[in-house]
Amino acid sequence: MKSLTRHLTFTLSERMAFENIPPTVADLVRESGIQEGLCLVNAMHITASVFINDDEPGLHRDYKKWLEELAPFDPSPERYHHNRTGEDNADAHHKRQIMGREVVVAITEGKLDFGPWEQIFYGEFDGRRPKRVMVKIIGE
Amino acid sequence: MKSLTRHLTFTLSERMAFENIPPTVADLVRESGIQEGLCLVNAMHITASVFINDDEPGLHRDYKKWLEELAPFDPSPERYHHNRTGEDNADAHHKRQIMGREVVVAITEGKLDFGPWEQIFYGEFDGRRPKRVMVKIIGE
Amino acid sequence: MKSLTRHLTFTLSERMAFENIPPTVADLVRESGIQEGLCLVNAMHITASVFINDDEPGLHRDYKKWLEELAPFDPSPERYHHNRTGEDNADAHHKRQIMGREVVVAITEGKLDFGPWEQIFYGEFDGRRPKRVMVKIIGE
Repeated sequence: MKSLTRHLTFTLSERMAFENIPPTVADLVRESGIQEGLCLVNAMHITASVFINDDEPGLHRDYKKWLEELAPFDPSPERYHHNRTGEDNADAHHKRQIMGREVVVAITEGKLDFGPWEQIFYGEFDGRRPKRVMVKIIGE
Repeated sequence: MKSLTRHLTFTLSERMAFENIPPTVADLVRESGIQEGLCLVNAMHITASVFINDDEPGLHRDYKKWLEELAPFDPSPERYHHNRTGEDNADAHHKRQIMGREVVVAITEGKLDFGPWEQIFYGEFDGRRPKRVMVKIIGE
Repeated sequence: MKSLTRHLTFTLSERMAFENIPPTVADLVRESGIQEGLCLVNAMHITASVFINDDEPGLHRDYKKWLEELAPFDPSPERYHHNRTGEDNADAHHKRQIMGREVVVAITEGKLDFGPWEQIFYGEFDGRRPKRVMVKIIGE
């Protein structure tokens, strides 16, 4: 069994933003030399997500609006108990649960085995600082 | 390490519907000959889900109502920016985030290692056309 | 390829509660002797979750309130069709979809490869009875 491990760092300039990461992941799959296996990509921070969806700016705008409705940003200690600890990012912990922590992608014949529109995104809900994403590839 | 890769095709006649897929997955685990390993099952389309829950029609009806409340179907360009691109399925991209893209199931002693009521479902949110699900099994 | 399989049992005294499980999972990774691989941790019951987030009681209180808003407990047969079967836990099946069934964690150099605040939780939405969690570790 072969494996490859890599930590990627993202520093997004907005509080909430999505960044396309598949080109990097595809490069790592090639670098691993693995033909058949699994590729795990996960956020290493609990106010961020890794998810697979469409690379379409209108949809990303829709997601941000929807997540803001489901779990509004509110740094005050009234709405969220978490923000009584001195934090202001309780909303980000909620948004991350909707969008997920991780994806697992099949590797077939040396490539990410994707459907026609699948793209891997880093989802940031409490940005403006460096945060890490893990890529772990195992197989043969 | 052994592996087995299979793409299943689903063409559901309704826009939103759930279809039980574990018999097929269990057959593929047998076919793989893998005794200990992991089985990834994922939607290859970004308006569909693979999830594990109960095979109970009342619950599925509840899920559909709930998803419709959380992200209503609305083909107009007013509610969703995504639908200004000529698409009408922005709601389906939202519903899929709630129900998830994929499941990873343990294989133990040659079988899917399931709890008493676990069943794998294909969740369709923009149906009436052929869409694919990936099954990837790795192990020994 | 090596593997380790373990079923953990949780009996929580409240209907909805979260319990930290990483010490146990870290012990199992050590026991497996696996240096590079993947660790799957999943709920084996469909009214429970395994998720990764912060070990902060205020946040957990926020999650409970939020999940109750998104899918209120209501044992009557009016709100949920599922509860017309004699069940009273339709809400728990909905809450579990938000919090997820499983996590997959990378193992690097013999340890769970975690970010600074990542902790694995068992999430119970229909407790007061024994329920199982699966840990499956594969690698070399």
